[in-house]
Amino acid sequence: MTFHQVDHPLLVIPGSIEVSDDVLFANASPSQSHMSKSFTETFGAAIKMFRQVLVTERGQPIITAGSGTLGWDMIACNLTEPGDEVLVLHSGYFGQSFADCFETYGVKVTQLKAPVGQCPSREQLAEALKSKKYKIITVTHVDTSTGVLSNPQIVAEVVREVSPDTLVALDGVCSVGSEEIRMDEWGLDVVMCASQKGLGVPPGLCLVCASERAIKAVETRKTKINSYFASWLNWLPIMRGYEQGKPLYFATPPVQLICALNVSLKAITSKPIEERWTKHKQASTDFKQFITNELGLKQVPQDPSIAANGMTAIYFPDGISAPDIIPRLVERGIIVAGGLHKDIKDKYFRVGHMGITATDTETRHDLEKVKEALRNVFKDAGYTNPTA
Amino acid sequence: MTFHQVDHPLLVIPGSIEVSDDVLFANASPSQSHMSKSFTETFGAAIKMFRQVLVTERGQPIITAGSGTLGWDMIACNLTEPGDEVLVLHSGYFGQSFADCFETYGVKVTQLKAPVGQCPSREQLAEALKSKKYKIITVTHVDTSTGVLSNPQIVAEVVREVSPDTLVALDGVCSVGSEEIRMDEWGLDVVMCASQKGLGVPPGLCLVCASERAIKAVETRKTKINSYFASWLNWLPIMRGYEQGKPLYFATPPVQLICALNVSLKAITSKPIEERWTKHKQASTDFKQFITNELGLKQVPQDPSIAANGMTAIYFPDGISAPDIIPRLVERGIIVAGGLHKDIKDKYFRVGHMGITATDTETRHDLEKVKEALRNVFKDAGYTNPTA
Repeated sequence: MTFHQVDHPLLVIPGSIEVSDDVLFANASPSQSHMSKSFTETFGAAIKMFRQVLVTERGQPIITAGSGTLGWDMIACNLTEPGDEVLVLHSGYFGQSFADCFETYGVKVTQLKAPVGQCPSREQLAEALKSKKYKIITVTHVDTSTGVLSNPQIVAEVVREVSPDTLVALDGVCSVGSEEIRMDEWGLDVVMCASQKGLGVPPGLCLVCASERAIKAVETRKTKINSYFASWLNWLPIMRGYEQGKPLYFATPPVQLICALNVSLKAITSKPIEERWTKHKQASTDFKQFITNELGLKQVPQDPSIAANGMTAIYFPDGISAPDIIPRLVERGIIVAGGLHKDIKDKYFRVGHMGITATDTETRHDLEKVKEALRNVFKDAGYTNPTA
Repeated sequence: MTFHQVDHPLLVIPGSIEVSDDVLFANASPSQSHMSKSFTETFGAAIKMFRQVLVTERGQPIITAGSGTLGWDMIACNLTEPGDEVLVLHSGYFGQSFADCFETYGVKVTQLKAPVGQCPSREQLAEALKSKKYKIITVTHVDTSTGVLSNPQIVAEVVREVSPDTLVALDGVCSVGSEEIRMDEWGLDVVMCASQKGLGVPPGLCLVCASERAIKAVETRKTKINSYFASWLNWLPIMRGYEQGKPLYFATPPVQLICALNVSLKAITSKPIEERWTKHKQASTDFKQFITNELGLKQVPQDPSIAANGMTAIYFPDGISAPDIIPRLVERGIIVAGGLHKDIKDKYFRVGHMGITATDTETRHDLEKVKEALRNVFKDAGYTNPTA
């Protein structure tokens, strides 16, 4: 049987993203026991392939039902103890939420904030790290609210120079599978993400990967972990068990979503991961050039070097706002996202181009459709490019 | 397009259960925004229908990515504070796990344990409630490890008589959708479950429903909630928002699983819920009579009045053990579950009959197939019913 998903509007928000027929079909797999040999193999293979996506050999994946929000929770409750100091690099909405999460656990949070469209500089970072002893520093790789791309490699480098005991945690919700990440080489201690963005799977999974140093930090904590569902100590034996072909029970895994993840990761790892990053970069560059050159619109990230490759955040021109554009795109079968960052909420919109929208350009033409629609709706809204 | 799931062995473990084609097809829905009008309606309707399944008008559902284990966590971290006393009624494996969960949060747990195959009596319960002031009492409605059915109505009655301030929490993981539950009438304060059993949806969702009294208890706690992802204060605005048609964000919901839940709940609520309970009872009675009369085997629950209607736990006869039976059933395309309760692990096996296996008897004949297979494999193993 060849499965084709139902006709639907093209979803180009910065997550959830379009999912392939194969992945959706796996999400409709018949029921099977979570302790069966066949599911154990599926889950074990997914754990191994997730490592490949993060270019890590030594990282320990933990894959559970949940979302990116649970990933923050896991980092906070496993790697910090009450009274610890944490440095959150803030490049948009999601830095604030991560900070709120830490504060739940009695952790003292310092946010190093950048103006909208920017991220903290290397110098600001070094200075902040010198001023206080931080247990963890967190980086939002791509802040979905601004489309700003941080550089975790440089962050990890500065940490090693200035404060080598500080753990480096990467929020890769909007970057894993679409942006270059080299967990081992860069020296990242935790990477967390969810299933519904660069990994091309429906939402419902939380995926984290912890370095040996991070696992050691959990195992040698002074205080007990203040969480049950989010405690890595409960999940580590399960993950190691499934990978070794010996299923163990802590919570029933989301079987169909793990099947879908397996199918998507197989497609992703069937080619060198560098090729996937390049395809995302090419699709992004092409689309951003269209926005700049053909539409004459400005983007939220101040500089192309700090603009995400999996999404584009675009300022409306003077006199045009969301109600002029977004409903007209809907009429043309295209779903983009409005603004999210509270300081500029009504001034911009967001287009996602992760997964098959970026990689399967020859068969899908998603971004060509988006460009054509944008041309038309801006024209219909009475806008002409002043620089053209 | 008519979707048919792939041919597969018949899954009759006590969860996950067989899922209908319609529900699986909904789980393969195309990507859509979690903030869209259409998804908001789907989610809002699921929240409302979940109330109908629990026969509550005032209960507040909270439906998130997760599993039953997260449901325990939610009850523990929201409704108890460090130092509180909790009474766990223990009728098998899952009472112990719930107790471990409470202890994570510095709560003092008393377990009222019954011998394998039994549940604590009304008198034992009243005595325990008199001896100490408990913040919560928990009941495992059906303990999946033993198939023992507790009586939450009586538990709530005794609590009202002896200790009316104690909150009554029901672990309905293996009972919601298959056993009679009347949340408002019985006076239950929280009911929690997961998607993959009586609700007939793939695993990956945690569903809880909190009474007004439970919500008030959370809102008037003395200490902060020691969890981020499991905190109801983070989820309540989201649930109320989706129900009122105003989507709000705390974590990306598992869109496809919510679509699947919506489809399954539509089927469940299309008929009076009493009819569903009756169908489960009929299927169970018929199957248990076969086990007793035709095979001459004993069940783990000591008395039919405390045997679950959604599953049957069956002792192997002398001289026969799991390797004689379970692989032979697999060869015949039937998957049952082995033992789980550590005291009797190798002495029994379990058959699940929830959802479409129990309700769609005229079209599916699942239990007829199971019976026929059991007849044959016991015969092949050299067993004859001594009472026949």
